[in-house]
Amino acid sequence: MTPENCTVGVIGFGIMGASMARNIAKGGCRVLGASRSPEKVTALAPEGIVPSSLAEIAAQCRVVLLSVTNGASVEDVLFGPEGIARTIAPGSLIIDTTTIAPDEARALCERCEARGLKMVDAPVTGGDVGARNGTLTIMCGGSSDSFKEALPILQLIGKRILHIGGPGMGQAMKAVNQVGIGLGIVAMTESLLLAESQGIDSAVALEILQSGSAGSWAFSNYAPRLLAGDLQPGFGAVHMLKDLKIALAIAKSEGRALPGLETTTTLFEQLIEARQGVGNHALIEAYRR
Amino acid sequence: MTPENCTVGVIGFGIMGASMARNIAKGGCRVLGASRSPEKVTALAPEGIVPSSLAEIAAQCRVVLLSVTNGASVEDVLFGPEGIARTIAPGSLIIDTTTIAPDEARALCERCEARGLKMVDAPVTGGDVGARNGTLTIMCGGSSDSFKEALPILQLIGKRILHIGGPGMGQAMKAVNQVGIGLGIVAMTESLLLAESQGIDSAVALEILQSGSAGSWAFSNYAPRLLAGDLQPGFGAVHMLKDLKIALAIAKSEGRALPGLETTTTLFEQLIEARQGVGNHALIEAYRR
Repeated sequence: MTPENCTVGVIGFGIMGASMARNIAKGGCRVLGASRSPEKVTALAPEGIVPSSLAEIAAQCRVVLLSVTNGASVEDVLFGPEGIARTIAPGSLIIDTTTIAPDEARALCERCEARGLKMVDAPVTGGDVGARNGTLTIMCGGSSDSFKEALPILQLIGKRILHIGGPGMGQAMKAVNQVGIGLGIVAMTESLLLAESQGIDSAVALEILQSGSAGSWAFSNYAPRLLAGDLQPGFGAVHMLKDLKIALAIAKSEGRALPGLETTTTLFEQLIEARQGVGNHALIEAYRR
Repeated sequence: MTPENCTVGVIGFGIMGASMARNIAKGGCRVLGASRSPEKVTALAPEGIVPSSLAEIAAQCRVVLLSVTNGASVEDVLFGPEGIARTIAPGSLIIDTTTIAPDEARALCERCEARGLKMVDAPVTGGDVGARNGTLTIMCGGSSDSFKEALPILQLIGKRILHIGGPGMGQAMKAVNQVGIGLGIVAMTESLLLAESQGIDSAVALEILQSGSAGSWAFSNYAPRLLAGDLQPGFGAVHMLKDLKIALAIAKSEGRALPGLETTTTLFEQLIEARQGVGNHALIEAYRR
């Protein structure tokens, strides 16, 4: 299979899914799109994306990429009343870019295989900008054969595409990455708060913090937005909390105590209680309740 | 005052102090050195550093730079039985690069001023490499006049030299920076542990972690050493713990709850209990007890 002769179904047209669909279409595939908000697909019709139902995607596609909300949404799209896994031709490939728990991904992969389908868990990182530019990092779990088959499509949406291991291992790595992001935001937040408490100019503090051993992507990218008063999500705090809870559940199931992760998860819970609709970089609001 | 006609006393010849003394000598100053381990000064005699007593430094220098262990050591060097502040000429300048608590720095500055001396708190960041290359970042607290007078000397040892505010404010900023470093190490450690628990290859995990939104100085610089099994200090875990305790005391005195900092401090306490003589990047050992 090459992109040129392929019809790809894309299900889920949030910020990430919409950009992926556009890049797959740009790459030469025919793209059928389905969303619970069909107007989001219709808006992309000028770019060649065909508004479709789940049934139409199951009937016409042999490759389907999902970018939905959570494990329950993935299960519904695949195995719900109109689930595509019920009718799509055996041998078809499901690529799930949604961030879900590794054990959910493994269970769904088994159910797909029981119907003769292949499945790759392929959560991404790189945010809205990476999705738009097709430069995402994609962490893949699944059999080598499934991964190889997914690769030409994944190369249309991402730049760094790594096969981490068997089913669920893409999600396992994604959970690890979210731990790094979440705890990095706590590091940024508490440093800036301690500066503020002591009357240090935030811009001076940030200059020092990002230039040395404390430096991080969070200081360089999130902190300037925060100091400018921009709390709008690049990545929503509510998604961050979902991902941290997945990571914490993994740690607990492995008997691994991660106190930093526990503290971070509690702080994001407090953020969600304090403020809705903000980005994950707005964690400082949890301390200001 | 210019470096060319200046005699500078340097007290403390640890990794940092020795490098600073060499760079001040290279910059054209006559340097008198004192250490509780006099052989460390003698070793630098070929580079023009004159082994001296505290009394000799007090008698001959109008600028003295300290790089000692903690607040008690600074107090002893200045006001102990042989303390230089007892005999040095009024108008002399004390530059303290030791990391101590902001309130300790303020109290010492007041006592210096009561004897007609100037004092600048000037803790540094940039590690052994920055000290050797004279590229340290230096965070300064003190009056504008004292800062201006210290600047020509500080420019011999550092590259980014910032006047944060009045007495103690250099230490205040240093505490903030150490919070960023300490919490960044927790982010690195728990991400790598969660990867390991799930059987993900550490090198693959690190490649993903450092390339995206989780990226940090810690991932890029500490993690490779850690994965290579090198736990030797660049910056000792015991110093990290001292600094985190200073930061935590500040937060408490400001009525500011910083749960990430509390968790991080506890983890470094556990590291020190588990392992001695390791670097701050070896925090993972606290989880392996």
